[in-house]
Amino acid sequence: MMMATSSNSMVVNTSFDALSPLKLPTIPKFKIGLCQLSVTLDKNQNLIHAKNSIKIAAEQGAKLVVLPEMWNCPYSIDYFAIYAEDFDDKDASPSFSLLSEAASCHGITIIGGSMPEWNNGRLYNTCCVFGPDGKLKAKHRKIHLFDTDIQGDISFKESDTFSAGDEPTIFETEMGRIGVGICHDIRFPELALLYRAKGAHMICYPGAFSMITGELLWELMQRAREADNQIFVATCSPSRDSAGFYKIWGHSSLVAPSGEMIVTSGCEETVVVAEIDYSAIELQRHNIPLERQRRRDVYEFIDISEAEP
Amino acid sequence: MMMATSSNSMVVNTSFDALSPLKLPTIPKFKIGLCQLSVTLDKNQNLIHAKNSIKIAAEQGAKLVVLPEMWNCPYSIDYFAIYAEDFDDKDASPSFSLLSEAASCHGITIIGGSMPEWNNGRLYNTCCVFGPDGKLKAKHRKIHLFDTDIQGDISFKESDTFSAGDEPTIFETEMGRIGVGICHDIRFPELALLYRAKGAHMICYPGAFSMITGELLWELMQRAREADNQIFVATCSPSRDSAGFYKIWGHSSLVAPSGEMIVTSGCEETVVVAEIDYSAIELQRHNIPLERQRRRDVYEFIDISEAEP
Repeated sequence: MMMATSSNSMVVNTSFDALSPLKLPTIPKFKIGLCQLSVTLDKNQNLIHAKNSIKIAAEQGAKLVVLPEMWNCPYSIDYFAIYAEDFDDKDASPSFSLLSEAASCHGITIIGGSMPEWNNGRLYNTCCVFGPDGKLKAKHRKIHLFDTDIQGDISFKESDTFSAGDEPTIFETEMGRIGVGICHDIRFPELALLYRAKGAHMICYPGAFSMITGELLWELMQRAREADNQIFVATCSPSRDSAGFYKIWGHSSLVAPSGEMIVTSGCEETVVVAEIDYSAIELQRHNIPLERQRRRDVYEFIDISEAEP
Repeated sequence: MMMATSSNSMVVNTSFDALSPLKLPTIPKFKIGLCQLSVTLDKNQNLIHAKNSIKIAAEQGAKLVVLPEMWNCPYSIDYFAIYAEDFDDKDASPSFSLLSEAASCHGITIIGGSMPEWNNGRLYNTCCVFGPDGKLKAKHRKIHLFDTDIQGDISFKESDTFSAGDEPTIFETEMGRIGVGICHDIRFPELALLYRAKGAHMICYPGAFSMITGELLWELMQRAREADNQIFVATCSPSRDSAGFYKIWGHSSLVAPSGEMIVTSGCEETVVVAEIDYSAIELQRHNIPLERQRRRDVYEFIDISEAEP
């Protein structure tokens, strides 16, 4: 598995190391910033919003900043192709450049929510991650596209517009190994199990759940992914007043490995900054050593992209 | 995989059929009874309690009745071996016989919580399932033993006393395909994924969570297993005033595939009867077809017991 999308990627190529003791990263205690942005029809405005919010988070001490799913484009089939950028064409990628510059300017890591991406004639829902040097560190294309038909809520097929990514994305930072999923990716425990097996300390899910699925499932999914894997889970959503074809739930959150919600925003545009302390992972795994208790003689979990040559 | 413990077992030998359309069972709508029993030091009293509670549930129309983990024995290392029965020796298995007789007497299926079982010199934490003919239908030995060390709550190693089972257990009834897990088995999404892939309509988890893990994780785990798999999840716990070495959380529950808690008890001894309607599974899978959206080209999940000859 793992990122082969950029020469700058610091990819995690280790084999499954679930049973090895937790390795704490260089910086095991740090602040994370969740920028719950209000996404408008004006792309330029969205970029200014993002730039300002990242600055606020960095000024409050955030070393890692997460943006929402589709932070530069209203969540609507009508707009994805229009707002999309080809990240290989730097001159035509203002959103990509903005994130890169903000990361190096503040010396932080940015998990850039998601943006519509053009690549070889295909459209993807893509998260770009930038290191404090401003270089692209990893790129995650949403693996599980959101096709749904809920009476009274939404009927929508993301797969009519987007192509799906086909690689999990986990990368190494000074603040630990971090896996990325986008929105509907959170519904699949397999992806989180896979990241955990790769030694993830945290999974970040930019997402834009609807009002109905948000109320029912948003917190549940975050806490489930965290509790199953005894890791931190961070999510970042657009604010409810964002433009687009449906109302967004909001509630960007950080959940600790104990199952506790450390912080969650409301539904308005806001910047949430909260502290992560990975010693909570050690404590939780000492309390109940789930990883040692997994029964690999009963079930086994295969990372296909790694299994194949 | 699957039950080879009894000549009466109606085992599910089909290969993974996750992608085939949902097959509704003969009885797609029925009542389930959850007997939240108060477990005492007096084994005979526990048997009388169970018999009465099953009768109450059956009289209220329950076609499927679930008992708690360790319903005939206080949850304590001091008692497991003393209260254990060898189910192969019918004359020395009053608990086993009671469940068999209650099932045939009321013409119902009983998922007999769990009991300590002696077998070939080993002790197991075992769930026996009886069909309306009173015959043993399936037997599940707790796969994931509960070893924990939580400061201020409990320090306890189930594996010091019990041997672990090594087979998932799913069986066919008129009320659908039902998978069984015991307590700590619920912490492992793999087992539930495996049951779902085998076409389970429901998973039943008899369990006895502690006060701290109960408050933090009991509802979360039930709702996570349900939402990940779009199935029903039923749990049954002893009541809080049960004898044993730690206070039990209680809250026997039924959760629907929508993520909603249909019913949950308090912490006292009680019989909860609630209706299950599998059309909720169809609706949920129509709304968001998770099963079709799983990425078997990215990750794969292997049932080891079936993969081996």
